[in-house]
Amino acid sequence: MNNLKGTCIIGQSGGPTAVINASAYGAIKTALESPNITRVLGAAHGIVGVLNDILYDMGEEDPEELALLLNTPSSELGSCRYKLKDPEQNDSEYRKILEIFQKYDVRYFFYNGGNDSMDTCSKISRFMSKSGYDCRVIGIPKTIDNDLAGTDHCPGFGSAAKYIATSLMEIYKDSTVYDIGTITIVETMGRHAGWLAGSAGIAAAFGSGPDLVYLPEVSFNLDTFLLDCERLYRQNGKVLAVVSEGIKDKDGVFISEYGAKKNNRVDSFGHMQLGGLAAALAEVVKERTGAKVRGIELSLLQRCAAHIASQTDITEAFEAGKAAVEAAVSGQTGKMVAFKREDIDGKYAFRTILIPLEDAANHEKKVPLEWINENGNGVTQAFIDYALPLIQGEPDKALCSSLPRFAKLKKIRVSG
Amino acid sequence: MNNLKGTCIIGQSGGPTAVINASAYGAIKTALESPNITRVLGAAHGIVGVLNDILYDMGEEDPEELALLLNTPSSELGSCRYKLKDPEQNDSEYRKILEIFQKYDVRYFFYNGGNDSMDTCSKISRFMSKSGYDCRVIGIPKTIDNDLAGTDHCPGFGSAAKYIATSLMEIYKDSTVYDIGTITIVETMGRHAGWLAGSAGIAAAFGSGPDLVYLPEVSFNLDTFLLDCERLYRQNGKVLAVVSEGIKDKDGVFISEYGAKKNNRVDSFGHMQLGGLAAALAEVVKERTGAKVRGIELSLLQRCAAHIASQTDITEAFEAGKAAVEAAVSGQTGKMVAFKREDIDGKYAFRTILIPLEDAANHEKKVPLEWINENGNGVTQAFIDYALPLIQGEPDKALCSSLPRFAKLKKIRVSG
Repeated sequence: MNNLKGTCIIGQSGGPTAVINASAYGAIKTALESPNITRVLGAAHGIVGVLNDILYDMGEEDPEELALLLNTPSSELGSCRYKLKDPEQNDSEYRKILEIFQKYDVRYFFYNGGNDSMDTCSKISRFMSKSGYDCRVIGIPKTIDNDLAGTDHCPGFGSAAKYIATSLMEIYKDSTVYDIGTITIVETMGRHAGWLAGSAGIAAAFGSGPDLVYLPEVSFNLDTFLLDCERLYRQNGKVLAVVSEGIKDKDGVFISEYGAKKNNRVDSFGHMQLGGLAAALAEVVKERTGAKVRGIELSLLQRCAAHIASQTDITEAFEAGKAAVEAAVSGQTGKMVAFKREDIDGKYAFRTILIPLEDAANHEKKVPLEWINENGNGVTQAFIDYALPLIQGEPDKALCSSLPRFAKLKKIRVSG
Repeated sequence: MNNLKGTCIIGQSGGPTAVINASAYGAIKTALESPNITRVLGAAHGIVGVLNDILYDMGEEDPEELALLLNTPSSELGSCRYKLKDPEQNDSEYRKILEIFQKYDVRYFFYNGGNDSMDTCSKISRFMSKSGYDCRVIGIPKTIDNDLAGTDHCPGFGSAAKYIATSLMEIYKDSTVYDIGTITIVETMGRHAGWLAGSAGIAAAFGSGPDLVYLPEVSFNLDTFLLDCERLYRQNGKVLAVVSEGIKDKDGVFISEYGAKKNNRVDSFGHMQLGGLAAALAEVVKERTGAKVRGIELSLLQRCAAHIASQTDITEAFEAGKAAVEAAVSGQTGKMVAFKREDIDGKYAFRTILIPLEDAANHEKKVPLEWINENGNGVTQAFIDYALPLIQGEPDKALCSSLPRFAKLKKIRVSG
């Protein structure tokens, strides 16, 4: 049973990160070296590539180019946001996937993504099992949002956190430079959990960061926010605030939807689709304080900044991909690779474990409330202690004329 | 005459950059080592600190902390946007400056900034000369915009250009990852000249950058822009466009002011103060193409990203500060340090020269039209050849827990 031989497919899904390709490389390299895996295929745009039979032969790639995946951001094989239908209602897509698996003798399927991707993995795994087709399915975690359950943290988060902490340290320096007062509001990603916004708190802990940080775990009160800003502005002449895109009021309404809902809570939110949350909040704060206010949205920059990735994150992402292949070859299926944090002589360490796919698929890991300060506008030392080890280490990345040298894959399509 | 002894003041002015502190360090270090300079003072917030008599004794600083200025972004002494009155109409501020200069026996004044700062320098220099007070005034160039005349390039530009080129390479990877089409519009700084927007063209030259780049030197036609976007979107499914904040239409109206002027050229611009140019253009492109469109404003990030500064830029910024002090001590006054590009055995090199302050103060250096492509939506190889040497080299910067370790100055105030 353990000695299952056949093809493997590796797919990437969901929002890209600075290190999702490091996981792909970990899986591809390990699979290419495994005697049980006869052929290593990459799916173009995740499950969409499987459904459309667009698969690349990773064995045809130059090993040196593949190694450059370690420092190439985004999903080199292409990503997708495609959600498979519920197999109970319509299993035609699953039958199509089975057909492709049979066509290429696919016995190993590795899918790298967040909650939705783990759900996809789980459904495929169960369908294959029900169909009596022997295929081992392992999920590889990925999300800058760090909200996957069952794992201490997710590959992708450490690099995004490092980008955010570093950028906030720099923005603090820049936004407090003038003799006239200024208020700067920075928006991070993180729709459901405040790990990314909280990472801005690392900059504050290092003495050059935001005065105020708002996470979606605590309900956001616009009046309190305005009072916080006004008080600090009168006191210091300068305010730097960070908000998560996912902040909600006590009724659970996203602040970013105040305008869209046309509930006239705040006029300036009326056209906020144009500029996003930071720009809309900046407008309200400007009306209130009369200060020069600037909104900054970190946007895609925070998830693709491979140039300032955490080497810890890169290494762990690689190890997650490698562990997925090793687990499958050893007979595991229906699992996701997860990280367990360890303490070795007072130093951070990690090891990979396996958890049921369903555990990761159906739960969201939020920032513990006790890691957020009493006023709900900052993080505590416990958050810093958790996040700091994950951003450590500078990658020794390939450069060409002082610019990143990304992997260039041939992407040779296979045809049966 | 050359052997003038006395105090020097160093001030920083205008928008900060990643390397303005490297120039300050070049000036401070050289001044501290000069036998003719008896005391080295830093002005808090540029000329405002001189007017308010808030001056810090640089001799009291720890030399190791001062050296960290090489990799500390923004203006560590504080900056200002203060414009001195015209001395012909009201010379009270100049008399105040003279009073402070006399109080501290200031015989050397170094001012680090852009066009306006050189104008300030020039006026102070002439006033001191007219008053018969012997004080040598030298300007040190600084601007990410790279629009100072009389110099091949400006300290600050190389690092901003490197940040923009690198970030655009990463954004390109991220924004083209999905199987569904997307259009991404990125806005750079550069109100009057297109050097920063053009730098995004470096990413394109390296195969991972924008399809379209719009500089303010060429008049911007919204219809042509929409046609460009639509054509590429239909063709490739993905478009990455870069616009300078300073793009103007054929009548010289800033596109960013379309909304403010309420001329109904484009409805979506009505509330663009909320989100800026990229967000407003994104809205128009979305209406036209139906695509998923995202606007990204690089905002402050592009001018304070010391973590990815160009070592060439840092070295040159330091040398500019050093050259200013050396020039003044050797008897020069009323000049700005400038760079002359040299070619040594086919390799880029530079040397510092001196130009009259007025030359820099009253002219703007724009991107030559022949460096912009025929369609006005990209740069030519000549632009790349100009900019590429300026972004070279990775700084060996101090880190603490993988985060930047910025200089911490004591800033001890002097009092007569």
